[in-house]
Amino acid sequence: MTVTLAVDSIWVMLCTILVIFMQAGFVLLEAGATRMKNAGHIASKQLLGFSVAALAFWAVGYGLTFGEGTWIGQTGWFLDIPADKDAIPIEISFLFQLSFVAVSLAIAWGGFAERAKLGVYLIFALIYTVLIYPVIGHWIWGAEGWLHAWGKQDFAGSTVVHLQGGIAALVATLMLKPRLGKYNRDGSSNVIPGHNQVYSVLGVLIIWLGWFGFNPGSTLSAQDGFYGYVALTTTLAAASGVLAAFFASRLLIGKAEIPAILNGVLAALVAITAACAFVEPWAAVVIGLVAGALTTYTAIYFDKKGIDDPVFAFSVHGIAGMWGSLSTGFFASPRLVEKVGIGKAGLFYGGGFTQLGVQFVGVVAASLYVALVSFIVLWVLDKTMGLRVSKENELKGLDISEHGSYSYPEHVLFMQQVDGARRIM
Amino acid sequence: MTVTLAVDSIWVMLCTILVIFMQAGFVLLEAGATRMKNAGHIASKQLLGFSVAALAFWAVGYGLTFGEGTWIGQTGWFLDIPADKDAIPIEISFLFQLSFVAVSLAIAWGGFAERAKLGVYLIFALIYTVLIYPVIGHWIWGAEGWLHAWGKQDFAGSTVVHLQGGIAALVATLMLKPRLGKYNRDGSSNVIPGHNQVYSVLGVLIIWLGWFGFNPGSTLSAQDGFYGYVALTTTLAAASGVLAAFFASRLLIGKAEIPAILNGVLAALVAITAACAFVEPWAAVVIGLVAGALTTYTAIYFDKKGIDDPVFAFSVHGIAGMWGSLSTGFFASPRLVEKVGIGKAGLFYGGGFTQLGVQFVGVVAASLYVALVSFIVLWVLDKTMGLRVSKENELKGLDISEHGSYSYPEHVLFMQQVDGARRIM
Amino acid sequence: MTVTLAVDSIWVMLCTILVIFMQAGFVLLEAGATRMKNAGHIASKQLLGFSVAALAFWAVGYGLTFGEGTWIGQTGWFLDIPADKDAIPIEISFLFQLSFVAVSLAIAWGGFAERAKLGVYLIFALIYTVLIYPVIGHWIWGAEGWLHAWGKQDFAGSTVVHLQGGIAALVATLMLKPRLGKYNRDGSSNVIPGHNQVYSVLGVLIIWLGWFGFNPGSTLSAQDGFYGYVALTTTLAAASGVLAAFFASRLLIGKAEIPAILNGVLAALVAITAACAFVEPWAAVVIGLVAGALTTYTAIYFDKKGIDDPVFAFSVHGIAGMWGSLSTGFFASPRLVEKVGIGKAGLFYGGGFTQLGVQFVGVVAASLYVALVSFIVLWVLDKTMGLRVSKENELKGLDISEHGSYSYPEHVLFMQQVDGARRIM
Repeated sequence: MTVTLAVDSIWVMLCTILVIFMQAGFVLLEAGATRMKNAGHIASKQLLGFSVAALAFWAVGYGLTFGEGTWIGQTGWFLDIPADKDAIPIEISFLFQLSFVAVSLAIAWGGFAERAKLGVYLIFALIYTVLIYPVIGHWIWGAEGWLHAWGKQDFAGSTVVHLQGGIAALVATLMLKPRLGKYNRDGSSNVIPGHNQVYSVLGVLIIWLGWFGFNPGSTLSAQDGFYGYVALTTTLAAASGVLAAFFASRLLIGKAEIPAILNGVLAALVAITAACAFVEPWAAVVIGLVAGALTTYTAIYFDKKGIDDPVFAFSVHGIAGMWGSLSTGFFASPRLVEKVGIGKAGLFYGGGFTQLGVQFVGVVAASLYVALVSFIVLWVLDKTMGLRVSKENELKGLDISEHGSYSYPEHVLFMQQVDGARRIM
Repeated sequence: MTVTLAVDSIWVMLCTILVIFMQAGFVLLEAGATRMKNAGHIASKQLLGFSVAALAFWAVGYGLTFGEGTWIGQTGWFLDIPADKDAIPIEISFLFQLSFVAVSLAIAWGGFAERAKLGVYLIFALIYTVLIYPVIGHWIWGAEGWLHAWGKQDFAGSTVVHLQGGIAALVATLMLKPRLGKYNRDGSSNVIPGHNQVYSVLGVLIIWLGWFGFNPGSTLSAQDGFYGYVALTTTLAAASGVLAAFFASRLLIGKAEIPAILNGVLAALVAITAACAFVEPWAAVVIGLVAGALTTYTAIYFDKKGIDDPVFAFSVHGIAGMWGSLSTGFFASPRLVEKVGIGKAGLFYGGGFTQLGVQFVGVVAASLYVALVSFIVLWVLDKTMGLRVSKENELKGLDISEHGSYSYPEHVLFMQQVDGARRIM
Repeated sequence: MTVTLAVDSIWVMLCTILVIFMQAGFVLLEAGATRMKNAGHIASKQLLGFSVAALAFWAVGYGLTFGEGTWIGQTGWFLDIPADKDAIPIEISFLFQLSFVAVSLAIAWGGFAERAKLGVYLIFALIYTVLIYPVIGHWIWGAEGWLHAWGKQDFAGSTVVHLQGGIAALVATLMLKPRLGKYNRDGSSNVIPGHNQVYSVLGVLIIWLGWFGFNPGSTLSAQDGFYGYVALTTTLAAASGVLAAFFASRLLIGKAEIPAILNGVLAALVAITAACAFVEPWAAVVIGLVAGALTTYTAIYFDKKGIDDPVFAFSVHGIAGMWGSLSTGFFASPRLVEKVGIGKAGLFYGGGFTQLGVQFVGVVAASLYVALVSFIVLWVLDKTMGLRVSKENELKGLDISEHGSYSYPEHVLFMQQVDGARRIM
């Protein structure tokens, strides 16, 4: 291995570790945004999901995604791939890609929160890792993928990772139906506030940190420091998303709601993920501003329309994933398109509608495939084992029903003691 | 880019990420050290502040700090700086420096805790990033800065980052006046304990971790492994600070108070920040011991004197920042001064009072400038929009008043239900 | 320094930082697994322990472990070691090894939880760092160590770090005796649930993250990317451990208990630590599965047998440490043994019982030494200052008794107010 390759390998390994750390961020974000009675369940299922994904992606997922084949990879089971002395070691490449799968799965799971059976999570994790994610991954990032051949720009996965996860979350949240108590008879919506905003803020900070691996790491090289540029556009977009959501929340709700601010930064990060290497800094600011404002609006809109998406997975990852995926069709700059070597310049740089069209096709194709397969899988699970815990268990909380203990036993037992009957929140 | 430069760039990028992670540490430290009713506010304003700082430092702050000019930089807006093929990419350099600004701002904000309006935070963040920090930064770290020309030693920012933040926090805490209920009529002080010591400990551990980027990263190079030496002195000082604060707390208070221990490690880290590359390991131990003991004493002293500094920002960053800034005047070792190439050896190595004098001038000049500008800004804000939330809102908590929801709704609503009237802490 | 060495140095420094972050993981895991009244104590003693270890390992521990000498190192006090231009700088090497000592100490301290005096922790930390850890470290990892000469395989410390810590924890938990209320008169055991499962899950995720430094960093080189292979086996084992513990818990307890799942991932990580560089991926899966199932069983078994190990330190680190240490005797693969250059192939690869025997001797020798010295030290402390806080203080909690304040004052004072007498948990 040349020292150059050794440097690239360390860079990708560092980024892998950062992206894996996002699992902790999702634990905190999601646990904080839900109720005490489900906190341990939500936190611990992340470990189960990552483990299922790790083993399944090792056995077949990586081969399906990156193996040879037009529609799907058909080589590389158990990482059995001829060693390439000039490439980053296969184990590092695998771990980097695994970290992305795990993020996508974590997003999807947002739509299951506070009512799905533990077994449903596990089975869906397996299927997501081998049947859903690899297909879109192969189409867009596989050497022979058809969308890749079309020039689909998705630098670090607004479509592959986030839109997929967001669509799966939407399907799940629709099929699982709203949480008990979320909607009144007249269709009006109740706020079910999360139990710990500090967790959620900390979670978002950790996820943001992980994004320094997510986007910059997708350069897969440290040789010209281009990852620094990617980190810059990512940071500018995220900062813009925070401020846009802050102002949008004050405008739409009257207060700078903390969940809105958190959604704003995440949506901006999601949106810039496709574009980070293709756009100029000013465009990164615009992409982030739009994403932050948009997600604030759609989160309110879907809630009103009867879609109970407990952690706003579809608004944050689905809507912003679409916006980000389309954004290069507007903003891709010729000098950066040339550098990265995928697709064409965007509408605002005289590229016409070509790239925008490709991006649109990518969004539609990915959304349809993921929606279809997610629906089928969840429909079968619904008909066989049932998706949702019993009403009693949902009221008691999934910590007790699925795991046999409370997350905060001292608090909960005290509350029950003082105030038994009302203690079902 | 040579492979050597690629290695240096990765090193600085890694350190940048570590220092950015300190934001999460400050969230936890400060939220843990304050009350439940303000926790989400305190946590989420960190995201807002970082975002304001990121955009403002990108637009003008970096140019003001590192651009050409004697008193202030006047080039480099929006990072428009001619590319230097032999230097770390400008985007990475910018992100590294941004991470420092954000730490300094986080420190300053400690003085605002639990009573300042959200709008005040945001406006102050903007001004701090463009009018305060860049001036001192330019004087000490700018190529043409006058204190730099004098040979001011401040390796990673005891003065630039910490003393500035600490002085701004002091001005803020004085102008905002003590929190309701902090002092009795006779002037005696009440303890207002923070609501979660686990958060605070975790926050300090994350901040400590970030310091492995803060000080060692300030070598800006990985070529001779000197960052390892810097990491060693930093670690030894921190460990010494913990133990000094532990014993000081037992001596002065009678118990090993956890906030005192936490202040001890932070103060030691602050103090060694200027000196880490200039002093021998034994001197690092001494600097840490003094910082840890001193901060324990001054935290008690200022509290008694009617200064309500909720998270001890002035003791930890201001006092220890002064001590650290002066310390190289005593301990700077000739071999290390020669290596780093700034200033002269300290008093204890036969250097006489020269370097101590330079360090003293730096401390005084920085303190005066920051105090003056902070005072003017906050005075104007006080006269126009008012600095402080209403008494009612301070009692209700800033989570509700500024953001419209509780951080821990299940806990707080339960408490209110059981025990309404008394539930104003 | 060559650029090659610069790359290796950055790699080891990065891994050092990751392993140091494990301290935060242990804080969260242990605090989450114990009660509210002890949370700040448990969290903050980690800072004290790390600090004692840092100073003591700097002064003498590193020399004792890695200095010249057959039974114990006798050179290198205060890192006074002749510079080697071809090696990773001594400061980086020291910090990497310190991070391991600190993990081992954190494990040992698990056995002290919720009842030991603060002073006992501090004195034990000092002795562990200078009298216990360096001896086993020298035997197995020292250039002249006798077990090293025998070919003992312990790539990253299943024996050196984990088994040592686990044995010391067992001795401590036996000598300290069970917590008040843990066992009934008839010998039956009560569950004393931890107060925050989100902390524990987060802690485990951070510890898992740290393990990307722990095992891959033990290559001490980035030149051929072999650390990627080590990261792969580590990840596969951990994932397998999660699933094995999940199923074992459902089988043995009837529910997927969250503490069991957490123990499963940790036990698998502990077990693969010795073997990660010596075994094939399939064997890593087997090692992880066995570790996850075994630890679930032994945690229940020891609890029933009257051994109150509050955070299951012996099951997770002791039992899995033994299993992991022995595992290379079965699974070490010839091609990897040749690559690493220590010991021989295992039983399943035609290596016969030789390597298994060496591994067995290592486990027995390490266990005996640690048990003996830990016993003597704690016996002397018991006879002089006493190991355990008074019954009153144990009931009130160590936050108040050792540090003078509650970790969650708002919660605890509220509970006491509502429900004084019963509030002793």
